[in-house]
Amino acid sequence: MNNLLVAQSGGPTAVINATLAGVIRGVRTSNKVDIIYGAKNGIEGVLKDNVMKLNKFVEDTFALDTLTYTPSSALGTCRYKLEDWRKDEEPYRKIVEAFYKYEISYFIYIGGNDSMDTVNKLSDYCKNKHYNFSIIGAPKTIDNDLNLTDHSPGFGSAAKYIATTMAELESDTASYNIPAVTIVEIMGRNAGWLTASSASARTNGGTGPDLIYLCERTFDYAGFLSDVREKLKQKPNVLIAVSEGIKDRNGNYISDQLSSGETDNFGHKYIAGAVRTLEQLIRKEIGCKVRSIELNLMQRASAHIASETDVTESLLLGQKALYCALTGETGRMSAIKRLSNNPYRIEFISVPVEEVANKEKKVPLDWITEDGHDVTKDMIEYLKPLIQGETKIQYENGIPRQMKLF
Amino acid sequence: MNNLLVAQSGGPTAVINATLAGVIRGVRTSNKVDIIYGAKNGIEGVLKDNVMKLNKFVEDTFALDTLTYTPSSALGTCRYKLEDWRKDEEPYRKIVEAFYKYEISYFIYIGGNDSMDTVNKLSDYCKNKHYNFSIIGAPKTIDNDLNLTDHSPGFGSAAKYIATTMAELESDTASYNIPAVTIVEIMGRNAGWLTASSASARTNGGTGPDLIYLCERTFDYAGFLSDVREKLKQKPNVLIAVSEGIKDRNGNYISDQLSSGETDNFGHKYIAGAVRTLEQLIRKEIGCKVRSIELNLMQRASAHIASETDVTESLLLGQKALYCALTGETGRMSAIKRLSNNPYRIEFISVPVEEVANKEKKVPLDWITEDGHDVTKDMIEYLKPLIQGETKIQYENGIPRQMKLF
Repeated sequence: MNNLLVAQSGGPTAVINATLAGVIRGVRTSNKVDIIYGAKNGIEGVLKDNVMKLNKFVEDTFALDTLTYTPSSALGTCRYKLEDWRKDEEPYRKIVEAFYKYEISYFIYIGGNDSMDTVNKLSDYCKNKHYNFSIIGAPKTIDNDLNLTDHSPGFGSAAKYIATTMAELESDTASYNIPAVTIVEIMGRNAGWLTASSASARTNGGTGPDLIYLCERTFDYAGFLSDVREKLKQKPNVLIAVSEGIKDRNGNYISDQLSSGETDNFGHKYIAGAVRTLEQLIRKEIGCKVRSIELNLMQRASAHIASETDVTESLLLGQKALYCALTGETGRMSAIKRLSNNPYRIEFISVPVEEVANKEKKVPLDWITEDGHDVTKDMIEYLKPLIQGETKIQYENGIPRQMKLF
Repeated sequence: MNNLLVAQSGGPTAVINATLAGVIRGVRTSNKVDIIYGAKNGIEGVLKDNVMKLNKFVEDTFALDTLTYTPSSALGTCRYKLEDWRKDEEPYRKIVEAFYKYEISYFIYIGGNDSMDTVNKLSDYCKNKHYNFSIIGAPKTIDNDLNLTDHSPGFGSAAKYIATTMAELESDTASYNIPAVTIVEIMGRNAGWLTASSASARTNGGTGPDLIYLCERTFDYAGFLSDVREKLKQKPNVLIAVSEGIKDRNGNYISDQLSSGETDNFGHKYIAGAVRTLEQLIRKEIGCKVRSIELNLMQRASAHIASETDVTESLLLGQKALYCALTGETGRMSAIKRLSNNPYRIEFISVPVEEVANKEKKVPLDWITEDGHDVTKDMIEYLKPLIQGETKIQYENGIPRQMKLF
């Protein structure tokens, strides 16, 4: 028997199930896979012997379509980190044991930087012990911070959600004629890609965010206040996008500032987002109406506004990962190489996972404008193809159809 | 000349421009209107002589379609409240002066309870002074708290956004296998309709929110903690929907509790939402992972997930308001009467605005389950037709097309 095991790990995205569907769909055109197993909650499901057969979906187009458009990880996720096998071989032995039990030849792990660390360590272990498993990663992360791939699946959909939402928020805030500042916090602890995507709200003639602050640049309170005051002279409503990970000149997160000395009614430290700190700052220093908004989990879960480009690419990255596994590769991740912007052309490649694991791809500093509060045309051009195309998600009773595997 | 003046007021919705488009479109099939004027920022635009001609849109189907699907108030909004004319006649004189200047016979004001107060006072003034203007209201509010109409335009779209988002958040949170509570705060200071709509997330077999607390019932901390503990015994991930306006037994907003004794780093009182208070409570008393989410302005601005039923009805309510004006009615509001649930049948009527102004329609207490943390089947049946149908919004460059009037 040559069986396949697939699992998902890390933070969910709107399209991580499209990659899973791509793996399952890929099996249909190959005669090399007997049984497809899915592990529940990532590598934890392998360790705990919690797996299910997925073969019934191979020829079920309706189910695969529904799975493709269901957000989050249908197989469940985890944040389990493998210790180096030279220090603790036990979990590795357990995994190999499970592989033998289920006659696994191919293991595909769909995830981000941390999950690629698992792929890297596990494939390294197997090579060293001369186990002949193909262990392949398939990328996903809304943060777009994965190395060696032009962009990450999940990012385009989150970017489309953010651009659309920012355009809508701009319409909303612009309808009032009293001075007001609205600050929107966008995910990205160390990389500002998602925050940058708010600039795409301007594509159709809208003004979009007036100010954009990425975490790649040091955040300066005085400069921020001066930027806001300047904008308020030009228009009554100022809309601002900030990365959750903006830091001050001492390297401290802005999000920690408000909480530093505070406790709540229950005597506990209150943890607030960066926007809360900035909201308070503006209230005190400028004194106008101010509102802070966190896009929170919606930016990674909003499959109803997924980018069809992202859905398609996510699916194909699952298929590519499968083909890498079937052709005997191991310790590699399927990835995207961009050939041109206009027309948008890409190539599906595979890259060594050791150069992806635990690394972060940040926004190039020259894609941020010199004044530090906007992005350049290069960034807009980079983003443009990734948010194209509207999801083919199906509705039932007024809400999108979804699928549960467990 | 028989001219028409139209304006928008109060908090924006995803479909308030559909009602404006309905008014403009209605003019096409009537020969009673010469010029259509739009006032900027509601009644303030009338007082400040800030109006624009809208006739060019009457035959421009493309523009009207774009306007229909553009969220927020394209004419701008205000929160201006007219003083009783017996106490201060000055603004009334100014408005009548503007009506004479622009030869206005018909005035249509699109808005919520407060805006209907303006329609009521102004029509009352005109009747008393024997001015022969037709002053008509067209309803809008995501809160669904308007009297004498089965539901309010804007509500169905916000409800569809909330139901869809709750289903997506449920998928997201369910993918983890560690105990965690996610609390989502939904708009509604005095009426829990929007929070109730989160229950529609269950329509397609999803579990949706596990607990739902509306502001119509007194919020009990101990009962809440006990509900959460009970749910955590059944499943690792508990998803909760709460109205922003939940109050404790003393009638104090829960949202004020966290801020009561607190100041921020700048010495200012920190104002937090109800979910922040509950987040802290769970952290202290239960100790599991907890996240709070505010759907914020997105729930009223997300035209990309508008309910097509809501879009169509909003448009027709604009047309109905126009026909009321053209047939000489005054001091009335266009409204919806539901004839049956299944099949969903409604009738467009007009109602006396004095019975709408400043009044609030709350959720009937018998539509809340006895245990106080869910809604009944009657509520689900009421909601079902309102979220049906997917928006026909057009995309350009990956984000929805929008229109600016000013």
